[in-house]
Amino acid sequence: AVESSSLLILLPNSNTLHRNLRSFSSLLARVRVGCAMAAAAVALSNGSGGGGDSKAEFAEIYSRLKEEMLEDPAFEFTDESLQWIERMLDYNVLGGKCNRGLSVIDSYKTLKGVDVLRKEETFLACTLGWCIEWLQAYFLVLDDIMDNSQTRRGQPCWFRVPQVGLIAVNDGIILRNHISRILQRHFRGKPYYVDLIDLFNEVEFKTASGQLLDLITTHEGEKDLTKYNLNVHRRIVQYKTAYYSFYLPVACALLLSGENLDNFGDVKNILVEMGTYFQVQDDYLDCFGDPESIGKIGTDIEDYKCSWLVVQALEHADESQKGILLENYGKSDPESVAKVKDLYKELDLEVCLQLFIILCILHLSSSLNSPLRISCISSFSIND
Amino acid sequence: AVESSSLLILLPNSNTLHRNLRSFSSLLARVRVGCAMAAAAVALSNGSGGGGDSKAEFAEIYSRLKEEMLEDPAFEFTDESLQWIERMLDYNVLGGKCNRGLSVIDSYKTLKGVDVLRKEETFLACTLGWCIEWLQAYFLVLDDIMDNSQTRRGQPCWFRVPQVGLIAVNDGIILRNHISRILQRHFRGKPYYVDLIDLFNEVEFKTASGQLLDLITTHEGEKDLTKYNLNVHRRIVQYKTAYYSFYLPVACALLLSGENLDNFGDVKNILVEMGTYFQVQDDYLDCFGDPESIGKIGTDIEDYKCSWLVVQALEHADESQKGILLENYGKSDPESVAKVKDLYKELDLEVCLQLFIILCILHLSSSLNSPLRISCISSFSIND
Repeated sequence: AVESSSLLILLPNSNTLHRNLRSFSSLLARVRVGCAMAAAAVALSNGSGGGGDSKAEFAEIYSRLKEEMLEDPAFEFTDESLQWIERMLDYNVLGGKCNRGLSVIDSYKTLKGVDVLRKEETFLACTLGWCIEWLQAYFLVLDDIMDNSQTRRGQPCWFRVPQVGLIAVNDGIILRNHISRILQRHFRGKPYYVDLIDLFNEVEFKTASGQLLDLITTHEGEKDLTKYNLNVHRRIVQYKTAYYSFYLPVACALLLSGENLDNFGDVKNILVEMGTYFQVQDDYLDCFGDPESIGKIGTDIEDYKCSWLVVQALEHADESQKGILLENYGKSDPESVAKVKDLYKELDLEVCLQLFIILCILHLSSSLNSPLRISCISSFSIND
Repeated sequence: AVESSSLLILLPNSNTLHRNLRSFSSLLARVRVGCAMAAAAVALSNGSGGGGDSKAEFAEIYSRLKEEMLEDPAFEFTDESLQWIERMLDYNVLGGKCNRGLSVIDSYKTLKGVDVLRKEETFLACTLGWCIEWLQAYFLVLDDIMDNSQTRRGQPCWFRVPQVGLIAVNDGIILRNHISRILQRHFRGKPYYVDLIDLFNEVEFKTASGQLLDLITTHEGEKDLTKYNLNVHRRIVQYKTAYYSFYLPVACALLLSGENLDNFGDVKNILVEMGTYFQVQDDYLDCFGDPESIGKIGTDIEDYKCSWLVVQALEHADESQKGILLENYGKSDPESVAKVKDLYKELDLEVCLQLFIILCILHLSSSLNSPLRISCISSFSIND
């Protein structure tokens, strides 16, 4: 009964797809917790779920970490450079929803099977959570430059702020370097220090490689839509987004719990798959979401992005519809963009998306082992 | 006698300053070796100096490391992305003089007191040398974007190559990530693996912080020459260039030799000081060097850089000369640039530079302990 009610909310009986998407997003957030729980379920039998007011604990730690970065003895700061770094951190690290960072704390609580962590445990989990937020800030600052974007989280992209410009490239580098500084300061003596560094390095490498694939598929040479298919889309999304957004937080929690990541290959695969579904939603919102609520103006069509929408459209279009895509995709004038969006609507991509979501939930739940499945499914039904 | 002859070549009795500068540069290269030697001299008493044909050994290793990067199982490469990475590596990692990389091998030989390393030792030293060359490529690719430069090593900057553009930002990130991949692959089991990672991270952080200081001193707000002085110049140069160019190669050799870097604070200080002098030369060449032989067209004046030349000019200028600087520094029209260069000549900055070099040599030799001093000074006199 729990299972069917959790699937019901995904069926197209609500008024707008947008509402479904939000449900989907919040489901995923909790599937993630369920997953960490399942990872622990091998050893533990009790799983009560995290939650609580992690957000307040988490926010507190930011100021401390920022202060430490501003007092780093490895550089002789001038007043101007201190002001610059502080402003840059507040502008870029804050302002997001912190889902990735919070996920470390929730996953860690779940793995330990407790609702409240000890003070030192909370601090370490929050610190790793903030490292992921720093990593996210680093990617976003540089991606916005490469994509020539306008806005991010409801404000101008950092490189568009007066007097910043391409100094933002170096700010991105500094954000990345802060992660190493934070890890060194707080984890240097831990038995899992090397694993932590290797984890961040490998995830960063996967992300940059996914970004490269995205960039050269999008920009290289003459525009060629035949390069776009579901396999290319899957690779871009998996590497560019899924590893750092979905796997990394849980992997951090596992390391904090003293686990060896080599024993959790299944968890990695499931989380990466979830991340892929999450990005499909993001592709949809880029085109049809409300700029106000998603905090950015989507330009995937103008930027000739290998979006899930264009891949699906190519799959379902007849010859004349393909002609419309070839003619208009990747152009920045509003008429061309409108023609592409009209075609998406004509092809009923909303229905495709609904089906895709249902399939993904079925596949995920069937690939989860029994205790994981139960904790996952039960977390689905809370609050919905 | 050795000492005075080694200083003689720096006195202004040769025809061109340029020749002196080249002598200075080659001296520094050897002082560096002498320094590594001195580091070992604490334990060893014999110091014969490296040299030999390290260059051939070194070049061979590049292909192997590149192949490994192209076969990295952490990413599912497409044919296009493989071609991209290979071309990007050849374009940016190769083409330099490899002084930094070669310095690891020479320093390591000197530290061990041998002329020939065992095969495995050679491979590890070359690998760390290439990591520094990769690091250098990463900095140069991104610096050229931020400085809006035209050429590098006698060819267009990477971001100016058709179809590259701002994808170069991500290529910079990939270059940095390759270092972590290389270190993990070849050093993961070594007792000094953590120290190696911490070393590269700290040096990268210092470099990025120096670059920030350079960028905000240069660009931020309205142009204000009063911000420029010898202290600011020293900080920029020390952090932006000296740590990674002069300290890092010797530090790598020390780690390979099983040393604890904490015991070599003096060596660090001396190398960083040398790096500062090296950069002063670079500032001079940016303005007065032959673009053909230095492989780039200098634009420090146009870019309002905090160059050693403008700092010295501000120090020595009378009020009317200061007016010329304020009026023309940081403008890109050729007349303004010419006026600044004429003022530099009028102020006899060549003589300043000669004096500066002599002072630096005296200071360095007085700060070296006795065995170091001898090995340093004797290396000065070879071939000059």
